[in-house]
Amino acid sequence: MKRLAKIPTSGFYPLKFNVGAISCGIKKNGSLDLSAITSTSDCSAAGMFTSNIFKAAPVQVDQASLEKNQGRNYRSVLVNSGCANAVTGRTGLKDAETMSALASAETGGNSMCMSTGVIGQLLPMEKIEAGVPKLFKNLGSEHNDWMQLAKGIMTTDTFPKLVSKQIKINNNTYNIAGVAKGAGMISPKMATLLGIVCTDAPVHPEALKSALKSSVDSSFNAITIDGDMSTNDTILALANGAAGGSEITSTSPEFATLRTALAEVCSDLAQLVVRDGEGATKFITIDVNGASSPESAYKIAKSVANSPLVKTAMFGKDANWGRILCAIGYAGEQVDPAKTSVTFVPTDGSVPLKLLVNGEPQQVDEERAAEILNLPDLHIQVELAIGEGSSRVWTCDFSHEYVSINGDYRS
Amino acid sequence: MKRLAKIPTSGFYPLKFNVGAISCGIKKNGSLDLSAITSTSDCSAAGMFTSNIFKAAPVQVDQASLEKNQGRNYRSVLVNSGCANAVTGRTGLKDAETMSALASAETGGNSMCMSTGVIGQLLPMEKIEAGVPKLFKNLGSEHNDWMQLAKGIMTTDTFPKLVSKQIKINNNTYNIAGVAKGAGMISPKMATLLGIVCTDAPVHPEALKSALKSSVDSSFNAITIDGDMSTNDTILALANGAAGGSEITSTSPEFATLRTALAEVCSDLAQLVVRDGEGATKFITIDVNGASSPESAYKIAKSVANSPLVKTAMFGKDANWGRILCAIGYAGEQVDPAKTSVTFVPTDGSVPLKLLVNGEPQQVDEERAAEILNLPDLHIQVELAIGEGSSRVWTCDFSHEYVSINGDYRS
Repeated sequence: MKRLAKIPTSGFYPLKFNVGAISCGIKKNGSLDLSAITSTSDCSAAGMFTSNIFKAAPVQVDQASLEKNQGRNYRSVLVNSGCANAVTGRTGLKDAETMSALASAETGGNSMCMSTGVIGQLLPMEKIEAGVPKLFKNLGSEHNDWMQLAKGIMTTDTFPKLVSKQIKINNNTYNIAGVAKGAGMISPKMATLLGIVCTDAPVHPEALKSALKSSVDSSFNAITIDGDMSTNDTILALANGAAGGSEITSTSPEFATLRTALAEVCSDLAQLVVRDGEGATKFITIDVNGASSPESAYKIAKSVANSPLVKTAMFGKDANWGRILCAIGYAGEQVDPAKTSVTFVPTDGSVPLKLLVNGEPQQVDEERAAEILNLPDLHIQVELAIGEGSSRVWTCDFSHEYVSINGDYRS
Repeated sequence: MKRLAKIPTSGFYPLKFNVGAISCGIKKNGSLDLSAITSTSDCSAAGMFTSNIFKAAPVQVDQASLEKNQGRNYRSVLVNSGCANAVTGRTGLKDAETMSALASAETGGNSMCMSTGVIGQLLPMEKIEAGVPKLFKNLGSEHNDWMQLAKGIMTTDTFPKLVSKQIKINNNTYNIAGVAKGAGMISPKMATLLGIVCTDAPVHPEALKSALKSSVDSSFNAITIDGDMSTNDTILALANGAAGGSEITSTSPEFATLRTALAEVCSDLAQLVVRDGEGATKFITIDVNGASSPESAYKIAKSVANSPLVKTAMFGKDANWGRILCAIGYAGEQVDPAKTSVTFVPTDGSVPLKLLVNGEPQQVDEERAAEILNLPDLHIQVELAIGEGSSRVWTCDFSHEYVSINGDYRS
């Protein structure tokens, strides 16, 4: 779905952040593989990390760092692609600590690190150590520098994911910019969902953490490509306050505005990750309404989104509401078959196609269904009519290419 | 994996059971689509049914029948393939009741029915009604009759699944024969896992229910093709006591022998279903040992078995232990990364290949890994070393063909 990728040509970039990427030789093909995000003034920092038990070394090191420093005085994040530094034992932990230390030596203050790529291989530290001075000399604050950063963290991604936004709070103008990488959720070859969002708003670390958590819940946690959760998944936020104004805490009246803006940036990034899902040909929005609770709606939506049979049906343009129903039925949540309705909402704005109404299958016009399923964006609406719980999840289809990409021998 | 299908040329068939199948025109291509299992003496009966909330009409009718009759005095089961009679509302329920009544009219006693095929379409009852007299005139007790039955219940299955076994209890010889159909777990096109096991041992209905439940837990519930659970999944057991001897109850000393034999028949049938998984090229056994409990071991094994990334890696013959580890890590169960080991056990009896030992990745000989992954049967062993819980699950890989079969437009 590269044709539907939104690659910006300009943006609103936060003040006093310098970013960029170089190639230091981790990836064999010579593409960008070492990136940095730096701030010339101290940042509040927050992170959301994978819940996988097998946490990669950089995840462990960043979590410990944020706790120890209480999210204060961060100046940089060093990111490599091509090697995930996951399941690498004690040496891997030491290497991740070294990455953070190398960044700190360049910028002062505290630093974090991120890695994405092959699992079970040690980082080529000599290449990273040699690359760092060159990298930090090549950073900048222009659009092209942010594009370099977005490209530098890519693995099987087919396009860079960069989103930015400007908001006004009181009389201050703040910029928020974020990058992400995704593709197949995990693989030993090309692991991980990574995201970094930066702002020049002044935000207290606790408020940043709270805003990031709710933003990630409604964005990165609402997408699924293959249901697999990586060892390295990490979303970081940095706020340096360079645009002035008084500090935003979680009780400030301005907090909601900031949180909404952060959620929008995360949501846009997360959707770009789905559009770039490995082998994806369809972008699918699944809405579940009328569930017994939002959590229940979320579980049902995820069950539909993760069903290989639903995903292959969407790839095959088959108006297979039976498969959708099955996935609702085995989600283990409260559902009343006689009250359940399923509708295809065409993304071109034309009349919705009802497939099931209050448990009764409808006479489906297969030609009309084929028209809707030919659109690259699909929207499935499930109405359970038993409560007030709603949830929206984004996913993509399963294609031949998904199998090819993920069946390929590591090389 | 048709080449590894075990199609028997003879068997041990239970006395006084007559079975068979005809074509009555439900399937457009004229293949067998209406089947019956009958006994000339009254049977104890038991059933295990899908836990999907959207239960097909025959599931609802059979469950009600077994409860009402307390599993006694059954004489027949009528099965159609080509139409699942699922999500068909009140008409569907009436049609399923009619199917059971048609069978009862032929054999006397109580009857059940099963359906598999397209979801959301009504049964062509006139074809079934016209076919029933012809079908019941064509039943027999020979090997060929059982093969006809096994073929008659097929949908996307590529080979018939028939297993039989003889056991001795005290001085009596008992026969147990079963048929099953599977392919993709569900689809509106070709739904469902169905199984029927018959024996001429005399078994009390409660004992039959208990033996069937434990047999299904260790067989049909231990397989997964795509993780989807059908609206129609049903396993039935019939015992007519025609081979004599005193009735086996759940407190008889003979009960364990019967239960073990039933479990073996179910296990063989379940493995045949996996071998015939849609597009499958690999048969994969996943053992999880040393978990905190059997339930925990089962959840972890299922998490690995259902991971699309593990399944595509096995298709691609990639020694991707990182993906296996990830799936263990997000199962939500108790795991200690530093104690976890993962091994490929070659199914040709050669030396096992250790991938991860106590959390430390091993230097993997990729040539050796490629040899093992070239075998059609794979065996993944996970040792958690934190408890005594064990579980074995069977699955197959995800191939291009899986996507093709399930992406095809219904037709």
